[in-house]
Amino acid sequence: LRIAVLGLGLIGGSVALAARERLAAEVIGWDIDPAATREALAREVFASGAGSLAGAVAGADAVFVAAPVGAVPELAREALAHAPSSCAVSDVGSTKRTIMDAITDPRFVGGHPLAGAEASGVEHARHDMFDGAVWYLTPVGPGASLTRLRELVSAIGAQPLEIDPLAHDRLMATVSHLPHVFANVLVAQLAALDAAAAQGPSFRDATRVAGSNTAVWSGIYIDNRDALTDAIDDAIARLRAVRDTLAAADRDALTSWSEQAAADRARLGR
Amino acid sequence: LRIAVLGLGLIGGSVALAARERLAAEVIGWDIDPAATREALAREVFASGAGSLAGAVAGADAVFVAAPVGAVPELAREALAHAPSSCAVSDVGSTKRTIMDAITDPRFVGGHPLAGAEASGVEHARHDMFDGAVWYLTPVGPGASLTRLRELVSAIGAQPLEIDPLAHDRLMATVSHLPHVFANVLVAQLAALDAAAAQGPSFRDATRVAGSNTAVWSGIYIDNRDALTDAIDDAIARLRAVRDTLAAADRDALTSWSEQAAADRARLGR
Repeated sequence: LRIAVLGLGLIGGSVALAARERLAAEVIGWDIDPAATREALAREVFASGAGSLAGAVAGADAVFVAAPVGAVPELAREALAHAPSSCAVSDVGSTKRTIMDAITDPRFVGGHPLAGAEASGVEHARHDMFDGAVWYLTPVGPGASLTRLRELVSAIGAQPLEIDPLAHDRLMATVSHLPHVFANVLVAQLAALDAAAAQGPSFRDATRVAGSNTAVWSGIYIDNRDALTDAIDDAIARLRAVRDTLAAADRDALTSWSEQAAADRARLGR
Repeated sequence: LRIAVLGLGLIGGSVALAARERLAAEVIGWDIDPAATREALAREVFASGAGSLAGAVAGADAVFVAAPVGAVPELAREALAHAPSSCAVSDVGSTKRTIMDAITDPRFVGGHPLAGAEASGVEHARHDMFDGAVWYLTPVGPGASLTRLRELVSAIGAQPLEIDPLAHDRLMATVSHLPHVFANVLVAQLAALDAAAAQGPSFRDATRVAGSNTAVWSGIYIDNRDALTDAIDDAIARLRAVRDTLAAADRDALTSWSEQAAADRARLGR
């Protein structure tokens, strides 16, 4: 089993480690930055690095493109041009619609593992990064690539789940991108108020992802701007309703609202 | 050293455990609900329970009122009426202005440890709950009570910090109450969208406190409604600015905003 990983940051490095550890795969790594390839090799994230993208994907059974979302279409197309005709090509980007719109090759199946950390870089990569995590797949339809990716993703500990690209992006706007926006708003607000202030546990948890990997996240925000503006508008409407309830000192309404949140959280599970 | 704890939930129970463990104090517990007193006794949170508030505070060197903020003034006044003239009386409420406005006895010094958990109840109490946590104190001025409370709070592992009650409440609106509001908004939004949806790590962290202890939190929201409505208004203005930047697809502005968040977070520390 030969697996190529294109892009060697936190997620790419973790895919490489997991593939080596869990699949005993021959993993070939490549990054557009040769220094990143060398660093990942030095850290023994995989056994061999490639000097070119074409060299990395030659003879591969599967290719994972682990680059910022804006760079995925071009890298995926180049990988598809050089990969064997039976190779499954996927990505790990946080948005799926624009990527799926840009690539029509049936060997390509979009992917997105719901895993990560506030730290970026291959030095934080872990072979168990995907244990128990949902790994969304956005196939054009059934096919050999989907079958193979489901197997690989399961084998490295994740739970493959098929989803429509647009539904995925709308969901991520609420479940991931909006929490990042909230985190950035909270740190900005406290910094403006009192930068030396003590922080409680709720603030620390809510702002863990503030300002994380700015290059990657600017791309995600821009790519998913339609769904994210909708999610922000929805959040503003909800905040305004809470604000009005507070201003009216309506204790019963606040209690109902808190109880609904407790019920929602229980229903959503963890 | 004799310490009375009035109110035996998560925080009261933890104060009792910490006082016994770290100060070798004789701790007397009392709760308005006799069943709660019995349960805390059964869990060996303290050595002896009292049948009445007056009995609990008799002969005490210090009293901690660990009740929801709305109940603090009355309990504190009753404690002050029955406690020795040299006794220091404090509370652990999340808001301080209305409590300090309601109590004029110089033996009373408001308090608020920045600690807690999403779970409530004495069964989750821990003797190390306050290790390293800031513990705000709002004295009317210098005095024997302040001196004693500084010593006690330090001895159970926390860092005592004096603050003006109004400044405290404004700070908490941003650093604690707003993150709770955001958490409630996020779960409501996802529940409305897709209750069966997978959650990523950022969503789980951001919603850890959603709907936590609804009775306690409704009281906090109502009590701090002036500062919290200001904080929500400020957040809405910031969200609207991000939304407009997104709608304009202004990548450079989004990158600057993310970088500012990273810088703010680094400056705020963790």
